Amino acid sequence: MSELRHDPLSRRWVIIASERSRRPSDFLLDHEPVHEAPFCPFCPGHEEKTPPEILAVRPPGWPANGPGWEARVIPNKYPALSIEGEPERRGVGLYDRMRGIGAHEVVIEHPSHTLHMADMERAHLEKVLWLYQERLRDLSRDARFKYLLVFKNHGPAAGATLDHPHTQIIGTPVTPRAISMELESARQHYHLKERCLLCDILAQEMEARDRLVTLDEHFAVFAPYASRFPFELIVVPRRHNHSFSEEPRSTVAALAATLKDLLLRLKVVLRDPPYNFVVHTAPNTETVVRRANYWNTLPQDWHWHVEVLPRLTKVAGFEWGSGFYINPTAPEEAAAFLRDALV
Amino acid sequence: MSELRHDPLSRRWVIIASERSRRPSDFLLDHEPVHEAPFCPFCPGHEEKTPPEILAVRPPGWPANGPGWEARVIPNKYPALSIEGEPERRGVGLYDRMRGIGAHEVVIEHPSHTLHMADMERAHLEKVLWLYQERLRDLSRDARFKYLLVFKNHGPAAGATLDHPHTQIIGTPVTPRAISMELESARQHYHLKERCLLCDILAQEMEARDRLVTLDEHFAVFAPYASRFPFELIVVPRRHNHSFSEEPRSTVAALAATLKDLLLRLKVVLRDPPYNFVVHTAPNTETVVRRANYWNTLPQDWHWHVEVLPRLTKVAGFEWGSGFYINPTAPEEAAAFLRDALV
Repeated sequence: MSELRHDPLSRRWVIIASERSRRPSDFLLDHEPVHEAPFCPFCPGHEEKTPPEILAVRPPGWPANGPGWEARVIPNKYPALSIEGEPERRGVGLYDRMRGIGAHEVVIEHPSHTLHMADMERAHLEKVLWLYQERLRDLSRDARFKYLLVFKNHGPAAGATLDHPHTQIIGTPVTPRAISMELESARQHYHLKERCLLCDILAQEMEARDRLVTLDEHFAVFAPYASRFPFELIVVPRRHNHSFSEEPRSTVAALAATLKDLLLRLKVVLRDPPYNFVVHTAPNTETVVRRANYWNTLPQDWHWHVEVLPRLTKVAGFEWGSGFYINPTAPEEAAAFLRDALV
Repeated sequence: MSELRHDPLSRRWVIIASERSRRPSDFLLDHEPVHEAPFCPFCPGHEEKTPPEILAVRPPGWPANGPGWEARVIPNKYPALSIEGEPERRGVGLYDRMRGIGAHEVVIEHPSHTLHMADMERAHLEKVLWLYQERLRDLSRDARFKYLLVFKNHGPAAGATLDHPHTQIIGTPVTPRAISMELESARQHYHLKERCLLCDILAQEMEARDRLVTLDEHFAVFAPYASRFPFELIVVPRRHNHSFSEEPRSTVAALAATLKDLLLRLKVVLRDPPYNFVVHTAPNTETVVRRANYWNTLPQDWHWHVEVLPRLTKVAGFEWGSGFYINPTAPEEAAAFLRDALV
């Protein structure tokens, strides 16, 4: 069982994953280039090598845990957090800890081992997004999970350990610090202005246009004004909504098209760069909103979005030490390259 | 001139370094292994290739900007921030910006191109630390700089771009977010308890002992309870002091011994790992304390320290998206390995 620990100075939560425990000699291997294991547990025909599936897209009547699927969701075989038990929060002198309770699932996006998400059919990607939504809806019924994070690591430099295209979903018993800070900013803005911060940002970006990459009826994609990383992007739904999982089917279809388009632009301009994307949806409203008046404006003040972070630069001492980033590519320049990518 | 930009959602400041501007093709080179340029501007005899030195340790009477130095401080030739001008803070709609004003200096630690800081003589390292202190004292007289960050990148994976051993000092016109959060935690603790948070943490660690690596009259080195990274360490002076640059010579001599010892332990256990270290001293008290009553307990509530961050694991989507870290090595295990390293 892993453990969640809180640092009182930085206010950061950390998962100490003792089941994945690594000794000094394990790290020496990391200096070597990573070679893909010849056997892939995510490929069709190897379904018995993964834990039993939670959900899948496959033809009606076909049995679970066999081939024929288009995309499937499984529990992570080596989860960072365990699904069974209660967090048992307690203090350790000045510190806080709880048991490493949470959900850790993997969405295998496609039967093909090598197909990049950018190259999947739009209709296929829509099914993958539908699986995200289904899992978020189901996990949100569990009151132990305060936040559900959907994220993707593409390429070893972005932390991917398996090549087969997949996304991860982690449910945590605390709201992560990066999310709480965004929630707090959005809430303060709402209390001052009675307007949503991201709606205001969206309006400003649509007027300025110089950081805008694409814009259609449903979504705007732009390079954030204070991008941490070169070619960082944010995907914002134009219609205010706090929750990704509550979006109707038409919006999900539009998101599939938008995501495919922006990943293709990144692939063309930066020749298949490593990247992460992260869905910033509302905290688990089943547990948070019902319990605390503090968050009772959440549906008005929070606006879900997706962060896309190409991993092109190394993060060094200045960034780790200060939380301040040095970005060598102006977002206006990055946006111009990406706008012209598919011409 | 670079630009400082603030993101209203994450409350993060970013330096958009347009003078170091990088186009998409520049990033493709990063996929290749980095080979050291055959010519090193930091080596003795090449002093004319660096900007004129600010300060150096060299025999009395020897001319500046020539050989014979033991360690020297120069302005960074490609600074992230420029020393001339005023920040000119202004709003851009919802956003905040200022000109990229600040200091960016390099401390060349030793004439030898290949000598690891862990292998320098203790007496030499003391002189390097003395240079840090001198530069902090001098830069703190400049009221434009709210914070002065001393940090080191060792190895390409930790962001080092030159092999020759060096440290950097960056002075910023805002207090970085990571520091403000620590300051806020320390201040809240002090207001509740009238005790320093890090003094309390130190007492708890000295009693628990399982995360302690070394302890002498002046310094404790331990693996933080909620370490983000495997083998992360913190160096804490046992006598409360808010400011590294105000430490007397005896403490600096002890710090040189402690730093050398812990870097040697890391080198032995992890075979010369890439790492960053960062000095978390008080904000520029010349400007902050005099101006704001808010910080008038700073000398009591802040306790300077050094963070040491080996870079052994890749940071992935979960970490970037949540500010939550997964650490596969328990700090108690890391401390045990490091305690036994020099036996």
